Amino acid sequence: MQTQVHLLHHVPLSPFCRKVRLTLAEKRIPFSLKEERYWEGGTEFLRLNPAGKVPILRYEGRLLYESQAICEFLDEIHPTPPLLPDDPAGRYEVRRLCAWFDDKFHAEVTANLLYERVNKKIMGTGYPDSQNIKTGSARIKYHLDYMSWLLEHRRWLAGNALSLADFTAAAHLSCLDYISDVDWDRAPAVKAWYATIKSRPAFRPLLADQVPGFPPPRRYADLDF
Amino acid sequence: MQTQVHLLHHVPLSPFCRKVRLTLAEKRIPFSLKEERYWEGGTEFLRLNPAGKVPILRYEGRLLYESQAICEFLDEIHPTPPLLPDDPAGRYEVRRLCAWFDDKFHAEVTANLLYERVNKKIMGTGYPDSQNIKTGSARIKYHLDYMSWLLEHRRWLAGNALSLADFTAAAHLSCLDYISDVDWDRAPAVKAWYATIKSRPAFRPLLADQVPGFPPPRRYADLDF
Repeated sequence: MQTQVHLLHHVPLSPFCRKVRLTLAEKRIPFSLKEERYWEGGTEFLRLNPAGKVPILRYEGRLLYESQAICEFLDEIHPTPPLLPDDPAGRYEVRRLCAWFDDKFHAEVTANLLYERVNKKIMGTGYPDSQNIKTGSARIKYHLDYMSWLLEHRRWLAGNALSLADFTAAAHLSCLDYISDVDWDRAPAVKAWYATIKSRPAFRPLLADQVPGFPPPRRYADLDF
Repeated sequence: MQTQVHLLHHVPLSPFCRKVRLTLAEKRIPFSLKEERYWEGGTEFLRLNPAGKVPILRYEGRLLYESQAICEFLDEIHPTPPLLPDDPAGRYEVRRLCAWFDDKFHAEVTANLLYERVNKKIMGTGYPDSQNIKTGSARIKYHLDYMSWLLEHRRWLAGNALSLADFTAAAHLSCLDYISDVDWDRAPAVKAWYATIKSRPAFRPLLADQVPGFPPPRRYADLDF
């Protein structure tokens, strides 16, 4: 049995940190959290991670960076329950969708909505740019439609089993749901998928997150939203 | 024996396309190239890839996207020679460094230098922004120093064997070398590493690339640069 407690340096509304939290919790790997104001830099934090960002996982004395690399590592050394399938084609599809959300969705939606509304205020880097908000609000529709199309053909995003692709997508969407930027009525299939993910024990701690100055809407933590 | 010829939709000076070309060639998977003016969009191209970007690999009748997912897929189904090691910690380190170059190096260096100098002109989206060029020129020094530090401790970037991390880094650096933006004198260890990669048969086709309007410097293709 695993008894050592690992430490995740994180911020609550980071989709990349949330992806690692979901993976650790789903695999029942005990860990504690330490919040980092990483944007303030400072030599102590840069000594932790020269890339100057979170998540950072302190795992058996080693520091691990990059959420996708961390999650695949955890999946390899704690294979139960699996978050990537056994066959190369299935694994390709999970990785493709992880990149879709961490690159494309992140650049088009997360950066334009979450970073404009929340990160700028917390980091003291100015006011939300209304053009970016407008772009993000338009692009999220396209992504919800794409997810709906995937879920018409599959039980989970990458196939018929829950995978890291679902956690990656849910990590982004949950941050946007915290700031009421997801129009669930547009995509009933995505809403049903998110309700299922939301009710997993691994998801509970994310629903209890509170960011000072940004109270979540009531339905954020509501399993019957 | 593999005899089917696969098709890679690409542009010559894309580090992501180059990474896939290097992986295919290293594994001696026969493929042909088709150049795409992906930024012009158009329904035919978007039908190929809804994400609207290259590389796209047509592989046994299937379309594959996202360079890292493609390369890991190719490594799994064509395991010789291996581009990821067998142990989870070694695989983590390769994936971490791939993300370092494809995310951090890409955003700080490739986007500020290559996209400003070349892509803007080819795509007709304006003139290079001198502030971005300045930022990119400053940041590449930091990355060359980081690579030097890695290569003081290891034969290859991620350990003692050639891996996808080396191809990822070389894909970015080779595009920047094409536009004379790499100060090799700053980092002799990186220069020696690049000379070794450059002399591999898999690298040859990249050295023959010619982009109209942007003739490469003579030393770009020179193995003894």
